[in-house]
Amino acid sequence: MKIAVLPGDGIGPEVTREAVRVIEALGLPDIEMKEAPVGGAAYKAYGHPLPPETLEIASLSDGILFGAVGDPDCDSLERHLRPEQAILGLRKALTLFANLRPAKVFAGLESHSALRPEVAGAIDMVIVRELNGDVYFGEKGFRTAANGDREGYDVMSYSESEVRRIAHVAFRTAMGRARRLCSVDKANVLETSQLWRDVVIEVAKEYPEVALEHMYVDNAAMQLVRAPGKFDVVLTGNLFGDILSDQASMCVGSIGLLASASLGERQTAHGTFGLYEPIHGSAPDIAGQGLANPMATILSAAMLLRHSLGLASQADRVEAAVAKTLADGVLGRDLGGTAGTTEIGDAVLARL
Amino acid sequence: MKIAVLPGDGIGPEVTREAVRVIEALGLPDIEMKEAPVGGAAYKAYGHPLPPETLEIASLSDGILFGAVGDPDCDSLERHLRPEQAILGLRKALTLFANLRPAKVFAGLESHSALRPEVAGAIDMVIVRELNGDVYFGEKGFRTAANGDREGYDVMSYSESEVRRIAHVAFRTAMGRARRLCSVDKANVLETSQLWRDVVIEVAKEYPEVALEHMYVDNAAMQLVRAPGKFDVVLTGNLFGDILSDQASMCVGSIGLLASASLGERQTAHGTFGLYEPIHGSAPDIAGQGLANPMATILSAAMLLRHSLGLASQADRVEAAVAKTLADGVLGRDLGGTAGTTEIGDAVLARL
Ligand SMILES: CC(C)[C@H](C(=O)O)[C@@H](O)C(=O)O
Ligand SMILES: CC(C)[C@H](C(=O)O)[C@@H](O)C(=O)O
Repeated sequence: MKIAVLPGDGIGPEVTREAVRVIEALGLPDIEMKEAPVGGAAYKAYGHPLPPETLEIASLSDGILFGAVGDPDCDSLERHLRPEQAILGLRKALTLFANLRPAKVFAGLESHSALRPEVAGAIDMVIVRELNGDVYFGEKGFRTAANGDREGYDVMSYSESEVRRIAHVAFRTAMGRARRLCSVDKANVLETSQLWRDVVIEVAKEYPEVALEHMYVDNAAMQLVRAPGKFDVVLTGNLFGDILSDQASMCVGSIGLLASASLGERQTAHGTFGLYEPIHGSAPDIAGQGLANPMATILSAAMLLRHSLGLASQADRVEAAVAKTLADGVLGRDLGGTAGTTEIGDAVLARL
Repeated sequence: MKIAVLPGDGIGPEVTREAVRVIEALGLPDIEMKEAPVGGAAYKAYGHPLPPETLEIASLSDGILFGAVGDPDCDSLERHLRPEQAILGLRKALTLFANLRPAKVFAGLESHSALRPEVAGAIDMVIVRELNGDVYFGEKGFRTAANGDREGYDVMSYSESEVRRIAHVAFRTAMGRARRLCSVDKANVLETSQLWRDVVIEVAKEYPEVALEHMYVDNAAMQLVRAPGKFDVVLTGNLFGDILSDQASMCVGSIGLLASASLGERQTAHGTFGLYEPIHGSAPDIAGQGLANPMATILSAAMLLRHSLGLASQADRVEAAVAKTLADGVLGRDLGGTAGTTEIGDAVLARL
């Protein structure tokens, strides 16, 4: 079984290193990890944020462990050379269309949220975000309007099969949980959303046990503040999912603890091919100082074990070790503690 | 001076009634109020959500007091006949391009927010949302993809002059406050946002005293949870503004208290032509029962007095009466109280 390790930029390398140590410590037979450059680091070394060799290593693997991309040095490059294109390119080239982001407060950490503890403590949801379509990948560019005005434009769209594919993932996810699904769109304004809603309603017929609700995105942003505990599974498109999943993550208190999976269509020997990354970014301001919390990346590695390698019990072990570390009060700076990157890695290893 | 009163659907008529009583009680000379149908109510009576007579009354006024539109009976109508088209149509036809939404917690109500009181209590911001462009008004429809798949699409775009116009409003707003402006976009993915950012940077040169910052929309959604008190003025496009302004509103604790102004380009005798509406919707579930809190509409009327009629001291009087009513513990159901619509209206009138 092959894991591609793509550390990337900023704090990416240091947090990925700890996750790799955790995987190694499990002593699994037949695991091969291969590292490859990505993002600004790859651009600086090879002139492209997603070099062909990296894409090949990623596509030949069973699962990808991804750090973070983003580098202020690269902000003025042409769009196709910027670090962000590496993650967008991987998602598209490898058909990683289903982004799963669980958000749940770790026991004992309720007081770290900006939300009142009883509101934060009730959060237990998964956001299912589509990753291969929407305004992210439509035609885009600059044009001159009739009056000579310069205009920027981006075409938003979704096709029936794109919506159907992600809707099935969301309904299946809901079936494994509390069987409530909230589909978020802006059907009162957008035809893309109208099609989205029509298809979701159609797919719902195959999952009669799941209670389906539709919500406008502006209302969803309100409800995620007011009563985030009411959500079970949230299904949404690429753009709204980008916004709402980050909002939901922050409700939990620290983005230093949150993992994500981006699953594709291909089946591996024991699961589904996917890319796993912490939801935090490259945090250039604290990069290279050993200050970043590696837990989100370690938990991403656990998701990789579970979803792509079929090693659920090993995933449980890793998650339990992280929870124990937190419960023992080993907290990173993101949680008001003082533990550094390797110290947290060591603490998790000790509890495996 | 003419005020067009457009009550609309659901709780719109009952909350608007109280705001009209408040304006009447001020005993201003030369104020003429004219009511006109809008939304689902107008569709049911006249076959169109924004009848030509209503548009005319609105366009000949100095300011529009708007209740709410939205009626579940109309959800399956063709898009151009739905109630929402009334507000979208008014914004576009009357060039009401600048939506101002102040968000600030009323003294003593900090505990009503889902945010911790110290986080909620620090909120004091204005969101400036563009209302005439973006994916709201671009080409949209359904089409068949190469593989026969049905597709919904909507074109997002902004022109230089559209961005420049709203950027000036935001910078001027910031000059009258703490002189900090945060422009929100998704320039790492969207060309519309890249143009937006370029133009905002250009306009900033005319306001050297304003500290300008750019933030991606996903990060903004996080920061609005984590530390909403850090924002002063937030500038953003139509779609992101729809989401973020609702999110920010909810941080304040109740959307039953929040007013908004949508300003146009035309100058009236004493101010700027505009439309004023509560940010809450038509709430069909409690319509007609006298349960809705009319304060957001009363505060919208105060904004109308200030911005369109140049009656700042009368606006202050109304706002002070509302604040006093709240401080005296007259709370609507949205705030855990028992006061009904007319009871709250009476209480505000008594304190004028
Ligand atoms: C880096 C950026 C292009 C990306 C996105 O918008 O999808 C990020 O915000 C995310 O959510 O993974
Ligand atoms: C009713 C709807 C079309 C409208 C919008 O999206 O602009 C509303 O949500 C608002 O924010 O005023």
